[in-house]
Amino acid sequence: MHRVVESVGSDIKNLKRGDKVIPAWMAECKKCPKCLRGKSNICDTLVYNWSNGFMPSDKKTTRFSKASNGMPINHFFGTSTFSQYTVCDEACVAKINPEADLSKVCLLGCGVPTGIGSAWNIAKVTPGSSVAVFGLGTIGLSVVEGAKVAGASMIIGIDRDDHKLKQGLEWGLTDTLNTCGLAKPIEAIIKEMTDDQGVDFSFDCTGNPGVIYSAMECANPAGGVAVILGLMDSSKEISFHPSKLLWGKSWTSGLFGGFKGRSQLPDLVDKCVEGVINLDHYITHKMPFSEINKAVELLEKGECLRCVMDYDR
Amino acid sequence: MHRVVESVGSDIKNLKRGDKVIPAWMAECKKCPKCLRGKSNICDTLVYNWSNGFMPSDKKTTRFSKASNGMPINHFFGTSTFSQYTVCDEACVAKINPEADLSKVCLLGCGVPTGIGSAWNIAKVTPGSSVAVFGLGTIGLSVVEGAKVAGASMIIGIDRDDHKLKQGLEWGLTDTLNTCGLAKPIEAIIKEMTDDQGVDFSFDCTGNPGVIYSAMECANPAGGVAVILGLMDSSKEISFHPSKLLWGKSWTSGLFGGFKGRSQLPDLVDKCVEGVINLDHYITHKMPFSEINKAVELLEKGECLRCVMDYDR
Repeated sequence: MHRVVESVGSDIKNLKRGDKVIPAWMAECKKCPKCLRGKSNICDTLVYNWSNGFMPSDKKTTRFSKASNGMPINHFFGTSTFSQYTVCDEACVAKINPEADLSKVCLLGCGVPTGIGSAWNIAKVTPGSSVAVFGLGTIGLSVVEGAKVAGASMIIGIDRDDHKLKQGLEWGLTDTLNTCGLAKPIEAIIKEMTDDQGVDFSFDCTGNPGVIYSAMECANPAGGVAVILGLMDSSKEISFHPSKLLWGKSWTSGLFGGFKGRSQLPDLVDKCVEGVINLDHYITHKMPFSEINKAVELLEKGECLRCVMDYDR
Repeated sequence: MHRVVESVGSDIKNLKRGDKVIPAWMAECKKCPKCLRGKSNICDTLVYNWSNGFMPSDKKTTRFSKASNGMPINHFFGTSTFSQYTVCDEACVAKINPEADLSKVCLLGCGVPTGIGSAWNIAKVTPGSSVAVFGLGTIGLSVVEGAKVAGASMIIGIDRDDHKLKQGLEWGLTDTLNTCGLAKPIEAIIKEMTDDQGVDFSFDCTGNPGVIYSAMECANPAGGVAVILGLMDSSKEISFHPSKLLWGKSWTSGLFGGFKGRSQLPDLVDKCVEGVINLDHYITHKMPFSEINKAVELLEKGECLRCVMDYDR
């Protein structure tokens, strides 16, 4: 749970022992062509870490080994955070506000920024706008939170679980829609709810092809933005006619909410310290790390939003 | 060819006899929900004109009739410009710079702004960026011109006609690619041409489903923007996997290059008057209106970019 720098290599100038950090799987080396281009948060270190288990510096070293026999253990996604100590490339470490509560901002390693950033960085939700969020797990709820902070005036939550819809009101939903047993296509209902316009911004947080299509349909044809967050089964494709985009609609996606790991994650931590973002309500469980299997089970059953695990207990 | 206001109704305050204008099928009423929202150039007057042949003011009058028997003739797309005199709703009339040469800026009624605006307003091409343009008719060439004025440093023209590719160099192409008999997929070639990145901005100006897909593939996965300009056969669809957009790519489209008819077309006219945009090289033919069938034939054969017709000759 706690992430504090233990030691740094001799080349590392921007980190020192005792710094509070977030291990950033969304690496940011600040020197590859993708980082220098600056148009997205993709970094070549991330691409390397995606499919390799070695330190990016020499591309052959692993800094983990099995205590019993010394056999090497590969790194995972540049962070390897299921351990009490880890070794990361500088590109994978975001230095954060020393006032941050590590038992909370640990949530900013993945899911919560993905949702918040999809509203802020990818869709660029504007004040007074209308928003539809499909699927109200942690990602969907964090989209709702991002849209609310960005000033959206209408935030429609769409799910098939009444409990989740009710819960979403606490995050900032203004309207809820249960998709079970609808008499009309969902896009027709959302059109009616938005004075025949469609929403300014829609977000799929399910990864279901039909829902991804519906979320695109629900966005205002005249300049609406539809964002795909849910990861979809790789064996399927989505069919659409380009005329769906003809009036200026955009269809887009992004990783980690478009946040750049090192240069933008610290700002998000500041917003949590300042109370602009409320992390408390995502933390439904806390456990010692020894109970990780139980935590995964709760997540899979949908009975948990986020479980914070403590390595020291 | 000449478009000058002959007379105005008593409610019209912003136009007067003698004003130079462009009849704007991309209507802009400035008061419907779509205009007030401001996020696209779609206007409810346009939507009405799209499928109706009457004046939008009362939705039942036509101001044309057949001289021989008085039978009503419906309006077309709010402008009805295949006639020496026409009657338009105020939403369909853009008042322009009195210094404009009407024999040239008449090109700004449709195709040329569609291309230029797709670069400026829809893709928002940035200085130093890389661009791929698929299909080098007038629309494609005007995308090239827009990208060049926006400061793109690499503009790749893609076509199967060497003459068009060569012609495109005059508009601003820096690289050309003939798609006939390629040994590799075009996206692989464009990736090689762009240091393994893909282009920052791609534009389909063909309406061919396979080309639309290729143009999307050619855009940099990490934040590239793919714009669809070509109108596609309504019976077909395009299949894709959302992972194509996962790194932050956007897929979008737009009508009339995103230009708002009344509020933005006058600025484009100014840029032509100032010489920023060169309209001369699009005008390959001039004819009296009586030869319209010949002009259409030239267009269909691809032997003409734009033919300016004169009603007075």
